[in-house]
Amino acid sequence: MTDETTSSEIVVEPAPHAAWLPDCALAAPGRRRLAVRVPDVSEPRGGIAPPGSDNSREVVATLQGEVEHATTTHGGAVVDPDASPDLLLALSPEWSAPDGGTAPSGADDSSSEFRLARAGGRVTVTAATATALLHGWFHVVRLGEAAFAGPDADERHAPALTLRVLDHWDNVDVHPVMGQVERGYSGGSIFYAEGRVRDDLSRVTTYARLLAATGIDRVCINNVNVHAREARLLTDDLPDVARIAAALRPYGVRAHLAVSFAAPMTLGGLPTSDPLDDDVRAWWRAAADRVWATIPDFGGFVVKADSEGQPGPFAYGRDHADGANLLADAVAPHGGVVHWRAFVYDHTQDWRDRSTDRARAAYDHFAPLDGRFAENVVVQVKHGPMDFQTREPVSPVLAAMPRTRLALELQVTQEYTGQQRHACYLAPWWSENLGFRPSGEGDGGPAVRDVVAGRGPDPSAAVATARGGGIAAVANVGDDRFWTGHPLAQANLYAFGRLAWDPTLDPAAILDEWVGLTFAGPDGTVDARVREVLHAVLDDSWRTYESYTAPLGVGFMVRPGHHYGPDVDGYEYTPWGTYHFADRDGIGVDRTRATGTGFTGQYPAPWRDVYEDLATCPDELVLFFHHVPYSHVLHSGVTVVQHVYDTHFAGVERVRDTVAAWESLAGLVPDDVDARVRERLAEQLRSATEWRDQLNTYFVRKSGVPDAHGRTIY
Amino acid sequence: MTDETTSSEIVVEPAPHAAWLPDCALAAPGRRRLAVRVPDVSEPRGGIAPPGSDNSREVVATLQGEVEHATTTHGGAVVDPDASPDLLLALSPEWSAPDGGTAPSGADDSSSEFRLARAGGRVTVTAATATALLHGWFHVVRLGEAAFAGPDADERHAPALTLRVLDHWDNVDVHPVMGQVERGYSGGSIFYAEGRVRDDLSRVTTYARLLAATGIDRVCINNVNVHAREARLLTDDLPDVARIAAALRPYGVRAHLAVSFAAPMTLGGLPTSDPLDDDVRAWWRAAADRVWATIPDFGGFVVKADSEGQPGPFAYGRDHADGANLLADAVAPHGGVVHWRAFVYDHTQDWRDRSTDRARAAYDHFAPLDGRFAENVVVQVKHGPMDFQTREPVSPVLAAMPRTRLALELQVTQEYTGQQRHACYLAPWWSENLGFRPSGEGDGGPAVRDVVAGRGPDPSAAVATARGGGIAAVANVGDDRFWTGHPLAQANLYAFGRLAWDPTLDPAAILDEWVGLTFAGPDGTVDARVREVLHAVLDDSWRTYESYTAPLGVGFMVRPGHHYGPDVDGYEYTPWGTYHFADRDGIGVDRTRATGTGFTGQYPAPWRDVYEDLATCPDELVLFFHHVPYSHVLHSGVTVVQHVYDTHFAGVERVRDTVAAWESLAGLVPDDVDARVRERLAEQLRSATEWRDQLNTYFVRKSGVPDAHGRTIY
Repeated sequence: MTDETTSSEIVVEPAPHAAWLPDCALAAPGRRRLAVRVPDVSEPRGGIAPPGSDNSREVVATLQGEVEHATTTHGGAVVDPDASPDLLLALSPEWSAPDGGTAPSGADDSSSEFRLARAGGRVTVTAATATALLHGWFHVVRLGEAAFAGPDADERHAPALTLRVLDHWDNVDVHPVMGQVERGYSGGSIFYAEGRVRDDLSRVTTYARLLAATGIDRVCINNVNVHAREARLLTDDLPDVARIAAALRPYGVRAHLAVSFAAPMTLGGLPTSDPLDDDVRAWWRAAADRVWATIPDFGGFVVKADSEGQPGPFAYGRDHADGANLLADAVAPHGGVVHWRAFVYDHTQDWRDRSTDRARAAYDHFAPLDGRFAENVVVQVKHGPMDFQTREPVSPVLAAMPRTRLALELQVTQEYTGQQRHACYLAPWWSENLGFRPSGEGDGGPAVRDVVAGRGPDPSAAVATARGGGIAAVANVGDDRFWTGHPLAQANLYAFGRLAWDPTLDPAAILDEWVGLTFAGPDGTVDARVREVLHAVLDDSWRTYESYTAPLGVGFMVRPGHHYGPDVDGYEYTPWGTYHFADRDGIGVDRTRATGTGFTGQYPAPWRDVYEDLATCPDELVLFFHHVPYSHVLHSGVTVVQHVYDTHFAGVERVRDTVAAWESLAGLVPDDVDARVRERLAEQLRSATEWRDQLNTYFVRKSGVPDAHGRTIY
Repeated sequence: MTDETTSSEIVVEPAPHAAWLPDCALAAPGRRRLAVRVPDVSEPRGGIAPPGSDNSREVVATLQGEVEHATTTHGGAVVDPDASPDLLLALSPEWSAPDGGTAPSGADDSSSEFRLARAGGRVTVTAATATALLHGWFHVVRLGEAAFAGPDADERHAPALTLRVLDHWDNVDVHPVMGQVERGYSGGSIFYAEGRVRDDLSRVTTYARLLAATGIDRVCINNVNVHAREARLLTDDLPDVARIAAALRPYGVRAHLAVSFAAPMTLGGLPTSDPLDDDVRAWWRAAADRVWATIPDFGGFVVKADSEGQPGPFAYGRDHADGANLLADAVAPHGGVVHWRAFVYDHTQDWRDRSTDRARAAYDHFAPLDGRFAENVVVQVKHGPMDFQTREPVSPVLAAMPRTRLALELQVTQEYTGQQRHACYLAPWWSENLGFRPSGEGDGGPAVRDVVAGRGPDPSAAVATARGGGIAAVANVGDDRFWTGHPLAQANLYAFGRLAWDPTLDPAAILDEWVGLTFAGPDGTVDARVREVLHAVLDDSWRTYESYTAPLGVGFMVRPGHHYGPDVDGYEYTPWGTYHFADRDGIGVDRTRATGTGFTGQYPAPWRDVYEDLATCPDELVLFFHHVPYSHVLHSGVTVVQHVYDTHFAGVERVRDTVAAWESLAGLVPDDVDARVRERLAEQLRSATEWRDQLNTYFVRKSGVPDAHGRTIY
């Protein structure tokens, strides 16, 4: 028998399809007159960009080019700043916030802030840095004519989160198992091909433009699983890293690198990587010095240590604070930051051992270290305690480290949510996580979005964490013609950027923006039917995906390895700590303090009690926290097993509706987009049907309980 | 989460460890005096080797070298043939069988036959070809002193099966999923490295020596899944194939190639591969002409067509007979043979469809074609109807094609039987298959070994099939230091060759031979303890393996893809047609005519009735043929579910005994062999325990029936 693993075919698509940000229709003749005013920025200015870099000058040129292009595309011209333009974009390094010059609370990087003043229908955008002014320009583009409407105003716009990062799990060499991009579903890497950094990086600059338009300004350019080839980016290949940084720079986007904790040994030839060893410390300092000497606006390092086989400080009897502070010390002189991932657990667990609970691992490892991390360390915490599942509770780590800069880590690439073959708009899920108040409901405690903004639960710790850890996410773009494989998965990338800038935004409103920017015709407007259908297809697509996959928060019913498609028992007897414990009587993981693993005890009140008690545990998480009989009646009024049947039948019907809705757009969207989306929807319908039938058959075989409505279960 | 696929590490081992056939101790001084008599073979002789080849001359040199080496190693010298040697090896092209010159029944290739005459304690081995004389020499080496003992005799020795082939599933390029050797567990390929045929093929010659010593004389040198790179072996790379053939030739072993049915298109640029197209036929004839012009003793082609994605005649509305005869026509002028595999089934089956039964496929495809295959086509049939499982019934195809040359296909590489990490001596399993009488029990009908020898069930068809299809097996060697990864897996390779020569041999006796040849000390004898332990470890190891893996013939409970380790539901909802249908009440596949897929109807009486009736179906196949409740009582007296528990607990204990037995040999076997075997046994014990616990937990969870003996089930 030959192997059934499907290797996804990578088709090189030379010309990327336009994503959001088409021509700026507001600059058409007879409409708005645009102007740009910049002081002389031929020399870098202190405080604008790191010493020696020339961000400002380059970004100013970018901004001028954007405005010029938007204008001349429509046959117009940029006007003189003194000629009473409708929109004036003014770079004013002397400008500071109205309240007297201090940066907005929580930000350590005022360069992202801009001011929008509207008076008599005219708009002036002012910023102290070119990057911020570029953000202001994209803000006006996003608003379109609405920017000029309304009463006079004087608004300040600054990102809620200081650090807004996309992590690329891109490999330089094609990994024999994980491919060019680990968990990538959009073709090859935009950075690497054929075992080295691409010669032509023009697409990277286009990517930076997309990111700048949403508010993202940092990109980690290589996989957190740092293999031997990729480790060398830190040393031998620095000139190539510098080329990538240069390709990102015109849009104010900074490069970060994922590094291997074992680098002092593997690259430096030292006998140890012990974080307390003087030679190791010196090696890292020298390595950082070289990086910043080559790339003055370099961002920092990302580290996955002592996790899933990656090296780390445990080998030397040190802890994660020792490890992270080692690197923090090396990058501190350059203003660099270290993102240290909290995704640490035992991936060689024995499934027979019911007392070990992977969900507990991040808290158990990191909470005791609170207060020990250096100020330029960000501990990067996955949103849930497991691994980017479609449904998990929020990680209790986010309520447990008031004296640590915490970042929320999301996954834009759809590893567990349909791999860009299923339409699954994730912003509602992210929004739910960002809005969750780990220390208490209502307005009684800070939400996750506050925690990562540096406004955590402990006011006395506010100074240490005032800058917050921000947000990071695994990227979803590749060299695919549509950037993201599924054209509609672009909406996830866009939404992540927007939520990173303002986590309180409404996901449907973000989608509306994206539709407007992506599907607008030459006049800048979108066909009402297109807008309506895209909402119908995407608004609720994450809940639809949930309905036909693993039920009630139980997680991990995917095929092992590639994680696509159903395999109910696929992870049940593995070392990965991902079990559901289904038997002929019931299913779910008992994580209570009373009778289970005690994971509920990692939460502060009220969650420790809400989750502990079956009577108050939300339906959607009941199998995450409890092992219940199939006959257990949910708050919704149906039994667990009937819920499985009902949601799986309904989910497939919703996908069928989605297909019909999309097909009604024929002729209203570009043909190539239409064709690709149809192809993906066909696969989604096939796959959803497969999920439905496998799940239903599995549960009817195991429980013996027939569907109350007598529908077909094979 | 990173991927859990384990990629087996390939360690290049420059010096292969000696396998069987150590120095021939019988030639030590003071013992036997050896001589060789050969006529002038400076010119090839008609009937000995194909036109233009120089097999005989090369093999004569090999034989002389073997005898010389065996003698001088012990300080002796080869004596003159006329000096009354104890052993005379005489090449006598004029020699023919005592009964008057006809070849032994069933053989078309008398070159393998030799005569052993013993008179007064002296032995003369005579053969008409150098290869046969070499076989005679190895026969004496195998017997040792016993060759000279006993009464005077005049024996004829000829292989029961004319065609004895090892199929290498070796790729030239490392396949991204399947590696250098598909289903290979012994390191890299001995033929290929770094995307091309190795420069140094000396190890291939050593391999040919091992094969010649067992009786194998044909090797297909590339994977039946013919990828683009490997397809070119037929054309551009013929000079390299010729080098491999030259490396095999000194020991009388001939090369075959696996070819792609699409070659006329992919290599020849034709618009079709239609077997009835004149240009296609001409292309294959020209291709064959080139091959034989380059390699005069080339063997033939092996084809996997219309199976698991390989191209075939179906695309043109033709059948397998059309396809096979196309190639047969091309190779016929050169005396070539076409091995056409019967492993054809729908690998994109819908698991919901309970009426489709993969077990039926080979019969359904091939039985109707009986009588339509050309005389030089061999239809190669896997021993069971599924795919090399640890336990299957014998394929009904072997009783269904009396007018076709059928070959039995076995798997020496342990894809489903422990992947050379588990000690699993397969000869008892092969022997059971070879001895099975598909048309009836007792001596009433021919056994499988008779069918493949050309003595099938239909005497009227005897002429067409008199030459038989012989036997073929997937090879298990690689560039591993011990040839086969697990040193004890050498015994499988040896046993396959011996059974190919004489399928009636007793597996325990074969093992005894192998132990004698492999573990003999300088005096030619083996420590009694070593012999005893190797029997204890291996004799029953296949049944031990069966006891802790999939029970009662149900098959396929392995991890998808790599097929190592347990995953009870791993193939349950896949397109591969490999299901067990376990629910909370029972398990097994109903293949009866009365209520199931009707597969039992493919057998002649009595098997169609024996298997149909639960009362007569053998326990070990009950779940292959029937879906039964867990409470069903087997002939053994225990229920199905209790059988699962009992065998799995007992199996692990037997592995534990195996480990202890082996460890008692410390100091009695070479240290490197000991170390490698211990490492493998440790893994076998770990894996068997994992099988036990996963299977037991799966069945207790599903059935709710506790172990009658209260043992620990997790």
